[in-house]
Amino acid sequence: MTRPRFAFETHAVDGRARTGVLAMRRGDIRTPAFMPVGTAGTVKAMLPEHVRETGADILLGNTYHLMLRPTAERVHHLGGLHTFMNWPHPILTDSGGFQVMSLAGLRKLTEEGVTFQSHLDGRRILLTPERSMEIQRLLGSDIVMAFDECTPYPATRDEAAASMALSMRWARRSRDGFDAGGDHAAGSALFGIVQGGVYGDLRAQSAADLLDIGFDGYAVGGLAVGEGQELMFKVLDETVPHLPAGAPRYLMGVGKPDDIVGAVERGIDMFDCVLPTRSGRTGQAFTRRGPVNMKNARHKDDPRPIDEACGCPACRSYSRAYVHHLLKAGEILGAMLLTWHNLCFYQDLMQGLRDAIAAGRLAEHAADFRATYAAGDIDPV
Amino acid sequence: MTRPRFAFETHAVDGRARTGVLAMRRGDIRTPAFMPVGTAGTVKAMLPEHVRETGADILLGNTYHLMLRPTAERVHHLGGLHTFMNWPHPILTDSGGFQVMSLAGLRKLTEEGVTFQSHLDGRRILLTPERSMEIQRLLGSDIVMAFDECTPYPATRDEAAASMALSMRWARRSRDGFDAGGDHAAGSALFGIVQGGVYGDLRAQSAADLLDIGFDGYAVGGLAVGEGQELMFKVLDETVPHLPAGAPRYLMGVGKPDDIVGAVERGIDMFDCVLPTRSGRTGQAFTRRGPVNMKNARHKDDPRPIDEACGCPACRSYSRAYVHHLLKAGEILGAMLLTWHNLCFYQDLMQGLRDAIAAGRLAEHAADFRATYAAGDIDPV
Repeated sequence: MTRPRFAFETHAVDGRARTGVLAMRRGDIRTPAFMPVGTAGTVKAMLPEHVRETGADILLGNTYHLMLRPTAERVHHLGGLHTFMNWPHPILTDSGGFQVMSLAGLRKLTEEGVTFQSHLDGRRILLTPERSMEIQRLLGSDIVMAFDECTPYPATRDEAAASMALSMRWARRSRDGFDAGGDHAAGSALFGIVQGGVYGDLRAQSAADLLDIGFDGYAVGGLAVGEGQELMFKVLDETVPHLPAGAPRYLMGVGKPDDIVGAVERGIDMFDCVLPTRSGRTGQAFTRRGPVNMKNARHKDDPRPIDEACGCPACRSYSRAYVHHLLKAGEILGAMLLTWHNLCFYQDLMQGLRDAIAAGRLAEHAADFRATYAAGDIDPV
Repeated sequence: MTRPRFAFETHAVDGRARTGVLAMRRGDIRTPAFMPVGTAGTVKAMLPEHVRETGADILLGNTYHLMLRPTAERVHHLGGLHTFMNWPHPILTDSGGFQVMSLAGLRKLTEEGVTFQSHLDGRRILLTPERSMEIQRLLGSDIVMAFDECTPYPATRDEAAASMALSMRWARRSRDGFDAGGDHAAGSALFGIVQGGVYGDLRAQSAADLLDIGFDGYAVGGLAVGEGQELMFKVLDETVPHLPAGAPRYLMGVGKPDDIVGAVERGIDMFDCVLPTRSGRTGQAFTRRGPVNMKNARHKDDPRPIDEACGCPACRSYSRAYVHHLLKAGEILGAMLLTWHNLCFYQDLMQGLRDAIAAGRLAEHAADFRATYAAGDIDPV
């Protein structure tokens, strides 16, 4: 039986939240879904089979990093990103737009696209909607993101409107470039990205423009850029109702566990964030009772696992004292164990949300989560 | 059935080489054996269960590193080194003597021991044979090494003789300190260390002194310190005949694959070296045709595994191009995969030697190994 290119099915609805499955050629994505970030063709400090074991159905790859090194053409010649990084399941790639603006030097934005200088060899590179589609096709992406401008925060209404309008023109060119990809387009999906800053009417206009063009899924971009959780939730409240119920909704770059819970309550289906992996490398562990800095000296004699309720390898086999020791000694295994733990925490969080929606008790579940998460470190010695 | 404290059985002899099993409470050690180094309570960039999967029967832990951080007392209170680092199989600990002299600052050697300054907090610490035995007991070591002075190279005959004589007095104090340990001594073993520099008669005298004291096994120390392979083999030729056939022989800190092959031919049963793990973190892969620098640009488009004959996760699932990319991008996964590969290479090397000795064809096997290893990189594109 041939698997579908893209079939999104909702199994249960609870308030504005829903749970279901997004079926694609390379596998099913259970929603709400959290996508670990594999920036440069690796989820840092993890073997991909272990990322899979945490419960991840899909990874995110960064077009900006991969186009510079090893280059999209090289990945293509080596069999595509799935083969290259040994992840046979779905991959979503971003468009490169966000990272060009946040990471590249000497960048210049025009109607055509963004020109920037490579930090690796100083070469000047033009990234356009068409080139972004080509790169994501060469990588072999399953879910391709339209090329957009992430509107900076804060921005005046006029700035946000102009930026959103440019992103909508680029969305049209992304759609055309993607469709021109032929065979690849037949096996993958294209998502549009709603912009408009913190202005509800601009968000509504952006959503309407994207629906006119037509995409497989709809992302909410330009959030988690400094506006704070309250304002982010307000923008979601004003944006999600303008998105079709039958397509998946993806909140880009979000976020902290409580951000995710609140966004799921507001109808979001997909998330990505570097927080669990990046925090893992800097010594922060996520637990049911909030984040814990494992470098803190109070852990140095503590024989208990990071979180008794967690089934990850770090919690099954090691003490807080050991993890603390590894971090103090700068040992790679410290980053490995904490990354694994944090990815498990995020996937367990998503499973809990999916189960709660299916059982029609999301409000209670979310309230329990928030109360426990705010309570602080588990069972202090 | 209770496992033996220490039972060394030789199953086959081929020339001066032998293969067998060293049975201890925590497990069997197949000899000749290679012991990966877990300096600070972790084999760097590896989960211990994956170290086990490579074929390792025993690890080495460093007394010097562990006594400074997290401290032997802390490891003891947390259940011992096996529990702390999640390695239930045998562990050999060194005495701290070698690393105090090579790593510590402001050190002073007297008859009593070595005083040095901790690089972590500047504290002045006195390490003696008695304290080394206590630390290794607190760690819960299975094979405890006598506290010695690793004679520097080069050294005059007088210098080497004086250094060896000091090590022999410390060997006696180590034996007494170990025996005073009571319960722990009942479950673990103590090895003496032959010193004497490059002087055959001093080596013979040192071996005789150690046999008078009596140890479970005998190590050859003070080699692989700059004297070169030819001289190292000459010292082994002059030393090993003075060691009892019924006890295991351990060549400390050795070495390169061809060093190990030559030492096995000369009757050595145990080895340890940081080379496979350290090289793995700096981009060097060991292969049947010699070491390969995976950072070299010639790998960047190579779809083949590091070594087709290797069954490790790096070779099963990834291209040379991918490993090269990870190293260039400074990704932790690069260190993880290459460490794993190199540890597999070393354990496969030992299995090949054990099989060849059992089959009575070690000379042929060693000649084949040397010819192939000197041939250079496998199948250049």
